[in-house]
Amino acid sequence: MRISFIGSGRVATKLALALSAQHEIVQILSQNIHHAEKLAQLVSAQATHCIAKFEAVDLVIIAISDQAIEQMMQKSHFYFADALVVHTSGSTSLQTLSKYYTRSGVFYPLQTFSFERDIDWKNTPIFIETARESDLAILQEIAASLSQRVYCYSSEQRLSLHLAAVFACNFTNYCYDMAKQIVDQKQVDFSLLYPLIMETALKATQNDPYLMQTGPAKRGDANILNMHQTMLEKNGNSDLQNAYELMSNGILKRHH
Amino acid sequence: MRISFIGSGRVATKLALALSAQHEIVQILSQNIHHAEKLAQLVSAQATHCIAKFEAVDLVIIAISDQAIEQMMQKSHFYFADALVVHTSGSTSLQTLSKYYTRSGVFYPLQTFSFERDIDWKNTPIFIETARESDLAILQEIAASLSQRVYCYSSEQRLSLHLAAVFACNFTNYCYDMAKQIVDQKQVDFSLLYPLIMETALKATQNDPYLMQTGPAKRGDANILNMHQTMLEKNGNSDLQNAYELMSNGILKRHH
Repeated sequence: MRISFIGSGRVATKLALALSAQHEIVQILSQNIHHAEKLAQLVSAQATHCIAKFEAVDLVIIAISDQAIEQMMQKSHFYFADALVVHTSGSTSLQTLSKYYTRSGVFYPLQTFSFERDIDWKNTPIFIETARESDLAILQEIAASLSQRVYCYSSEQRLSLHLAAVFACNFTNYCYDMAKQIVDQKQVDFSLLYPLIMETALKATQNDPYLMQTGPAKRGDANILNMHQTMLEKNGNSDLQNAYELMSNGILKRHH
Repeated sequence: MRISFIGSGRVATKLALALSAQHEIVQILSQNIHHAEKLAQLVSAQATHCIAKFEAVDLVIIAISDQAIEQMMQKSHFYFADALVVHTSGSTSLQTLSKYYTRSGVFYPLQTFSFERDIDWKNTPIFIETARESDLAILQEIAASLSQRVYCYSSEQRLSLHLAAVFACNFTNYCYDMAKQIVDQKQVDFSLLYPLIMETALKATQNDPYLMQTGPAKRGDANILNMHQTMLEKNGNSDLQNAYELMSNGILKRHH
C-alpha cells in the first residue's frame, strides 16, 4: 500500500517507521520542511511542505495536533483525490474529516509517544473507525499488521477512552513531576521512588485501582494529612499544596 | 536475632515473612487477636493481644498506623526491656520513639504493600535511622539481609521522601481510579489503558518526568481542554471535573 503522512511529530514518526516495514511511505508533508526531511529520510520518502505537490496514494495519515486537523482539511481536501484519509487523534471525531471527505477514517493508537523511546506496537491497542463501511477492512488490515489488539470503536467511545487516558497518563506523569519537585528540594534522589512507581502501576494493571488505594487519605489519617499540608506550606509552592488538598479530599470522599 | 512485631497489617505481614527466613520471629502483638494469630501461624510465632505478655527480644518492630504509634509507646515502653525498638513509618519522626526510649530507631521500606502481592525486597529501598549510633549497625545488617539498597536518612529527609511517595504512589493510583470511573461509564474496558499506564511509569523512571509530560494541557490545546471539561460536566461527577481542572492548570502553568 502507498501511504503518505501529514505531520512529522512523535506519532507520525513512530507510525511511519513501523508501517515502512510493510508499506511504501511516499511523502511526508510538514509545515516545517526540516522536520519533514528528517522523517522522510528515515522511511525513504519524499519531503514536502506544499500540499499542492501531494501525490496520489492509497492512504493519507494525518498525524498533527487536534487544532490543526480542521484547518488542514479546509485547505487540503481537494488534493487527496481518491485516497482514504484518516487522522490519529483520540479526541477528534470522525466527523471533522467526513464532512469534507467521504473516504475518511480514524486510526488511533492508544499509547504515549516519545522520540527517544521504542513503541511496543504488538501490544498497543489501535482503535479504528471509517465513514464508509467498505473502508474498514483496509484500516483493519493495516492496524493488524502492527498490533494484536485492533478495535472498531465509535467516536464517542474513543473520546471517553482518550479522556481516561489523560487521567491515567498525563495526570499520573504530573504526579511524578510533583514528587520529583519535592525530593529535589531536599537533595533526595528521585530514583529512590522508581520501585514504588513501577509497583503502583503494575498493581493497577492487575487489580481494580479503587481496591488498591493506599496512603494517609485512604486511612483517613488527619495527623499525617495536616503534617503534609504544613510541609508544603513551608515549601511555598501553592500548586503542590492545592494538588495535595484536592487529591487527598478526592480519596477521602471516595473511601469514607 | 529474636524479633517481635507489634501490628499484623500489610507491612508487618510482608516484613515478618521476609525476615523469618533468617531470624526468629518470637511474638506478634495485635489488638485483633485473630489477625495476630493469622500472621503468627505464617512465621511460626506466638500471637498475643496483651502487651504485658511480651517476651524479651533483640528487636521490636512497630508496624502500625502513624496515629497508633504514639499511643502504643505511652503504654508499652516499660515492657520492651533492653530491646531495640523501631517503627516502619515514613511519616513519623524518630523522636516519637526516642523520647520514651533510648534504644530506638526507624526501619522504613519505601514500597506500597498489598496482602495479595509479593514484594521485590532486593530492590526496595530501606531507610534506617537510630537514636544511638551503636544501634545503627544492627539495623544496617537486618536491612541488608533483605535489600541491596539501604540508606541512613534523617527523619527530615525521610519525611520529604514519604510526602513525595504520596504524590508518586497514592495520587497516581487515584488517577488510575478516576480513569477507570470514566471508561466504566461507557462500558469501555479499563484494561485497554494498561500499556499506556505501564509505559508512562517506565518513562518516568528513565527520564525526568518534567520532560516526559504530554497531553492537551502540555500542548496548551484549549479546544480539547474545553471539550473534556464539557464531557465531565455531562457525566455529573464534580470530583472528576475539579481534578481535571486543577491538574490541567498545574501542567499549563508549569509548561507555558
